[in-house]
Amino acid sequence: MDQLEGVGNSFYPVIARCAIAHLRTRHLARARNDGTAACPIPAGSVKAVRSLFKGMMMPMISLADLQRRIDSSDLSADAAIAQSLEAIGAHDKTVAAFVCHDENAGAASTGPLRGIAVGIKDIIDTSDFPTEMGAAIYKGWRPRADAPVVAMLRQAGATIVGKTATTAFASRDPAATVNPHNRDHTPGGSSSGSAAAVAAGMIPLALGTQTGGSVIRPASYCGVAAIKPSFRLLPTVGVKCYSWTLDTVGLFAAGVEDLAHGLSAMTNRPELLPNGAMQPPRIGVVTQDFAGEPEGASAEALRIAAAAAKGAGASVRTLALPQIAAEAWQAQSIVMEYEAHQALAWEYGVHYDAMPPLLREKLDETAGILPANYDEARRIANRARTALAGIFEEVDVLLTFSAPGAAPKGLASTGNTRFNQLWTLMGVPCVNVPAYVAEGGLPVGVQVIARFGNDAGALNAARFVEEALARG
Amino acid sequence: MDQLEGVGNSFYPVIARCAIAHLRTRHLARARNDGTAACPIPAGSVKAVRSLFKGMMMPMISLADLQRRIDSSDLSADAAIAQSLEAIGAHDKTVAAFVCHDENAGAASTGPLRGIAVGIKDIIDTSDFPTEMGAAIYKGWRPRADAPVVAMLRQAGATIVGKTATTAFASRDPAATVNPHNRDHTPGGSSSGSAAAVAAGMIPLALGTQTGGSVIRPASYCGVAAIKPSFRLLPTVGVKCYSWTLDTVGLFAAGVEDLAHGLSAMTNRPELLPNGAMQPPRIGVVTQDFAGEPEGASAEALRIAAAAAKGAGASVRTLALPQIAAEAWQAQSIVMEYEAHQALAWEYGVHYDAMPPLLREKLDETAGILPANYDEARRIANRARTALAGIFEEVDVLLTFSAPGAAPKGLASTGNTRFNQLWTLMGVPCVNVPAYVAEGGLPVGVQVIARFGNDAGALNAARFVEEALARG
Repeated sequence: MDQLEGVGNSFYPVIARCAIAHLRTRHLARARNDGTAACPIPAGSVKAVRSLFKGMMMPMISLADLQRRIDSSDLSADAAIAQSLEAIGAHDKTVAAFVCHDENAGAASTGPLRGIAVGIKDIIDTSDFPTEMGAAIYKGWRPRADAPVVAMLRQAGATIVGKTATTAFASRDPAATVNPHNRDHTPGGSSSGSAAAVAAGMIPLALGTQTGGSVIRPASYCGVAAIKPSFRLLPTVGVKCYSWTLDTVGLFAAGVEDLAHGLSAMTNRPELLPNGAMQPPRIGVVTQDFAGEPEGASAEALRIAAAAAKGAGASVRTLALPQIAAEAWQAQSIVMEYEAHQALAWEYGVHYDAMPPLLREKLDETAGILPANYDEARRIANRARTALAGIFEEVDVLLTFSAPGAAPKGLASTGNTRFNQLWTLMGVPCVNVPAYVAEGGLPVGVQVIARFGNDAGALNAARFVEEALARG
Repeated sequence: MDQLEGVGNSFYPVIARCAIAHLRTRHLARARNDGTAACPIPAGSVKAVRSLFKGMMMPMISLADLQRRIDSSDLSADAAIAQSLEAIGAHDKTVAAFVCHDENAGAASTGPLRGIAVGIKDIIDTSDFPTEMGAAIYKGWRPRADAPVVAMLRQAGATIVGKTATTAFASRDPAATVNPHNRDHTPGGSSSGSAAAVAAGMIPLALGTQTGGSVIRPASYCGVAAIKPSFRLLPTVGVKCYSWTLDTVGLFAAGVEDLAHGLSAMTNRPELLPNGAMQPPRIGVVTQDFAGEPEGASAEALRIAAAAAKGAGASVRTLALPQIAAEAWQAQSIVMEYEAHQALAWEYGVHYDAMPPLLREKLDETAGILPANYDEARRIANRARTALAGIFEEVDVLLTFSAPGAAPKGLASTGNTRFNQLWTLMGVPCVNVPAYVAEGGLPVGVQVIARFGNDAGALNAARFVEEALARG
């Protein structure tokens, strides 16, 4: 433990804390004989945990720690940016998280995010970098303006150091990025580069987007914290559209506190910052049976997180979602693909041959969705949102799987969105918290979900779970 | 009458029909002594009506009539496009509705909108024309892709003949366009060129957008039919954003049937086409007292339209809107300006000196709106939407003013949105129907409003009102 903690507060590896916490939790679970399933990772020692991180490039950078060090003049804002640029130079050849970056980037002199190096998913417009959408059709494309989310970051003093790799049009065709924890595995998608760049310790903050599961899933696979905020808390203006009902801009960072500081600074909402006294939340554990069975690693992550939260004083109970949630889960893909046909009509119609093959195949398959199917899907979504609001009268947050399991092997697929898509359609805030390390050194997260508009509650509860896991 | 009708079905001047209908209505009203107020236009003869149209460039082009003539091979699609190009060449020097157009545009060979020349408001992305937002900051800007609404038009066979003048960033700084009915008056804004191009008989269809009142108001001022559909029936992807909660793409055409044919073809929704048997609607007349008094001309237009609808068999009654509607009316500008600060953050932050002066002044004034003000405004909007849904249990449509009065004199202001802004925030479909001609030959419309998602109902009721006005 001491050796791990010795890497310093500002680069404290959250995933390592989680893995250690996991081992402690298992130990306690065994002691209590509470039925926690057998764990596929090796024996529960710190040495064993450390061996799991051999694939990691370097410890992650905590945004909140950097802010504290810059505020106390322990570190200059320029030095903080330089540190990120150095890390990109050292590690991105292996990880391929960035599609371009500015080697000469400097820090702003004011703002809560001065000294914070940020990577922007390459479907988000920037005035000073190309925005290529991960697709040949947009090779070399340079938008005129910054997207509002980019302008918000700059207004808060952040430095945009580069653009991060995205699957083509934030769909299925993978980017070149690898999982920093195990290069034979996908980092997830579509926000592949943003998740991997934070995980590999290159930058303290990155922006991604989620339409199906493209923020929470890669965060889970890469072992970083991430938030998909309430729908439209962050504008999607200047973000390449796949589905205007679903597309949501999200943040990746080392830990939950870092997310809160980043999101608060961007939106000018101090209520998102962690408040001192953290009340144990009422947690409803949901397994989303309509989405199929999770793999063992995700089942284990959820059991560990629930047990840790309970151990730390949270009220934890299992909840069944109503039938309308299952219907909404199915409706999500109808909304998504119907809108994608309109959002990408020019690309699909004029540049059919140059379209990314997996996306083109999906659009070919879904060309027959009728306006009436779409209207019905939206009605189902509205009914499910109402039902979900009722559930949040009984619990503060829901706790569920972030992904079916650890990151799949290979780079041909970025994994499956089945445990994310309902929540994207509901527009509710979701936070990924790393909870477990599976075979191959691969992290696995859980997601904490609050009612629409309660992003502060989602962050506070996620921090509670994160700290419970760290304490073990 | 015969002389006016003699201009031919496909170029039948709807506004002239309305003015004649108005004179008939007044005659009947006087005969019934039902209290219709005195009319400011000259004596009730066809000759007098014709004199009102001396400022009109040429009769309007009916989209539906063109479709019928093309379908029956009475006219080729290419000839229909050529006719529009000729009209633009002849009249746009005076009206200044277009910022650019393609003199060599030809027709598509298939699709329900083949032969239909369309003008696109210059905040909507086109792959083959510049998109300059009416602002120096975007001088010469060429987007990569067509906005989805443009792609939808092309898929339906329409020909984009050019880009129409917009106020800068669809806000307050006026375009050069004049009102085709009286060149000393504004055509309204922000969709100035789209309304004027249709009114002046240059094109049968144009796209505009409404955030406050930028579709319905210029349609009223220019004497054309227009629809602001239900929120997001048409995607706003690729449309320069002012407020993502409010921005709505709308259509301008000669008459309501033309709007229905255009919108149906764009969206692939046959249910929007006029159905044979038109039931007399239940109409609730609302005066929006919270928005202040209308001028005499708008009061007269509403009285005339209500009387005509009643005469044609509609159930017509006056309705008072609940207090929450008045609150929502006030909340609209908070939502709009708070989001504009984010949507235009790059322009305002990086190009402050080049910003259009009226818009810059508005942004300066509204910089202090807090997230909490915005959140409260959105909650009020949600409560008002629920209350409004209840009202639509009692009536099929609402009938209210389209604008405070006829088009104001001068080009420095594009008029006031106070009778439009509530309905934009509610996201409900609104249709402008020309109903009256005021002094100076200036048209005045009324708006027909249906519940969210009932665009077919809004169009059917608007056609009922339009035909009732035409029959007198």
